[in-house]
Amino acid sequence: MPEQNRQFIFASRPVGYPKESDFNIVTSPMPAPGDGEVLVRTCYLSVDPYMRGRMRKAKSYAASLEIGEVVLGGTVGQIVKSKHPDFQEGDIVKAYLGWQEYGIAGGEAVQKVNPSLAPISTALGVLGMPGLTAYFGLLETGRLKDGEHVLVSGAAGAVGSTAGQIAKIKGCRVVGVAGTDEKVKHVVNDLGFDDAINYNSVTDFDSKLQQVCPDGIDVYFDNTGGPVTDAVFLNINVRGRMAICGQISQYNSQETELGPRLLWQLIAKRARVEGLLVSDFAERHEAGLRQMGEWVQTGKLKYRETITEGFENAATAFISMLKGGNIGKQLVKVSEPE
Amino acid sequence: MPEQNRQFIFASRPVGYPKESDFNIVTSPMPAPGDGEVLVRTCYLSVDPYMRGRMRKAKSYAASLEIGEVVLGGTVGQIVKSKHPDFQEGDIVKAYLGWQEYGIAGGEAVQKVNPSLAPISTALGVLGMPGLTAYFGLLETGRLKDGEHVLVSGAAGAVGSTAGQIAKIKGCRVVGVAGTDEKVKHVVNDLGFDDAINYNSVTDFDSKLQQVCPDGIDVYFDNTGGPVTDAVFLNINVRGRMAICGQISQYNSQETELGPRLLWQLIAKRARVEGLLVSDFAERHEAGLRQMGEWVQTGKLKYRETITEGFENAATAFISMLKGGNIGKQLVKVSEPE
Repeated sequence: MPEQNRQFIFASRPVGYPKESDFNIVTSPMPAPGDGEVLVRTCYLSVDPYMRGRMRKAKSYAASLEIGEVVLGGTVGQIVKSKHPDFQEGDIVKAYLGWQEYGIAGGEAVQKVNPSLAPISTALGVLGMPGLTAYFGLLETGRLKDGEHVLVSGAAGAVGSTAGQIAKIKGCRVVGVAGTDEKVKHVVNDLGFDDAINYNSVTDFDSKLQQVCPDGIDVYFDNTGGPVTDAVFLNINVRGRMAICGQISQYNSQETELGPRLLWQLIAKRARVEGLLVSDFAERHEAGLRQMGEWVQTGKLKYRETITEGFENAATAFISMLKGGNIGKQLVKVSEPE
Repeated sequence: MPEQNRQFIFASRPVGYPKESDFNIVTSPMPAPGDGEVLVRTCYLSVDPYMRGRMRKAKSYAASLEIGEVVLGGTVGQIVKSKHPDFQEGDIVKAYLGWQEYGIAGGEAVQKVNPSLAPISTALGVLGMPGLTAYFGLLETGRLKDGEHVLVSGAAGAVGSTAGQIAKIKGCRVVGVAGTDEKVKHVVNDLGFDDAINYNSVTDFDSKLQQVCPDGIDVYFDNTGGPVTDAVFLNINVRGRMAICGQISQYNSQETELGPRLLWQLIAKRARVEGLLVSDFAERHEAGLRQMGEWVQTGKLKYRETITEGFENAATAFISMLKGGNIGKQLVKVSEPE
């Protein structure tokens, strides 16, 4: 084990899209676990859209990331030292250690991952926070009913690709919105979406949605916001539901973007728009993961990962993900489990 | 009984705010009821914000009003001829006869009004569609819980004034938003709202709401939309609900107005925005009216009416109401019951 640890430190609040220079790599002494703690070597670290929100100085559901702190985030790693009776060296665990090569956590803050069930990276994707977000967001916030008409934005991302497939499992007709032709092909050909559109090739979103969702939209699972979401207000069905999971199109704006005022559409449609956080369903995460695990193992639920190699590329991977460079879950591979 | 009837005909689709010339008064022969029908002399006719929506040529929850048709709307009147066994001459009834002095309706389309319970005009206001909209919108769509923090826009109107008082009956802290100092005084001094603001004297709505709703907003009952509603997105509490009843600030725009994109706020707050139509609660209207009637009779629920005298002034009253000229329910008095 090396004597030094490397960490990404939050160096400056991004203006617009983050830049590599908003993050610094620093070297610090290898930490030692205290009683009840474990030392974990990061195998994979996660970069997710929500992190951009934490980089703002604004009241939100969670504290802002402060300048000088280690960048936050979920990780999967291997225990290299344990001072907790439930964990042994070599155990694979999920934790929230942020962008660093090694990290310390209390035993209550790590969860064992069974590497024989699925690749351990899935604990940060389809069998982790993004997968559970899709599951509870679609079924609970979106109140999905079998056979409904569903639209998913950010359809090729970690959450959207899962949401769309869950809707297919539930017998729905599912249309995806993504940002490249490659993504459009992926969600239709590989994931079984009924149709998909590349929003970068659309100018009149209302007409396009009328065309690809001729029976309207019962449930909209929104990861992006922006003009696609505006057009959904015009095409939502009576008693339709819009589950607002993310608004990635807005996260890198310095000023609040302007869009059409469309709330009056909700009256005629008696439609509902509701935001969601996966943490609100915490007590049901285990049950959700059992269901998702079964779907993954039986091949009903597919996943793809975009893996960037090398700890030092975490900021680059994060920025690329914010710009839509990934298909499926964006991860950074830091080390191989032994 | 005269031999002629007078009717307001929809003459042209309004551009922006309606003008008197968008409506024509025509004289037509007095209609005669067929079997199962009644002839009703209008005592009061109702002008309501939703009518502006029907004057658009657009897909909505109800058919557009067509050029040449009698302007639609609720009425309270007195039966002058009955060919239906359940109704006699002299009965006071609520019907949907539109802007005309006399109208024919089938027996199934009229409801008796008991003039000994409350003034008959209330059947178009606090004990009619606007009152029920407030009741179900607040308690069902808004899922109001006792003691919550409530904001009502259009607070001095027929619906808003009722919604705010129901919230007070339920032990809530209630703040109103209205368009004149007189209305602000009315809802606080006469109706018992805890506080109110005149939106015409506010420039920074976010700061103003932080000031008058220091504990945030659990339930927002929205009749107006616009900048007030934008600021509610910034001040809604976790699990807050926004019941979208009306968006009167938008009804007279030719182009869809632009406003800030704020759906991302719903994520952090897990808040809900939902539109409502009173007709969705039709099977519970009777129960709602019983409760509302009790509150009116015991003085817990107050109401005010702005009554314009004279059938020929219906269009003027309608336009005035759209511009906020009324306090409480705007009515047009057409004739005295005998």
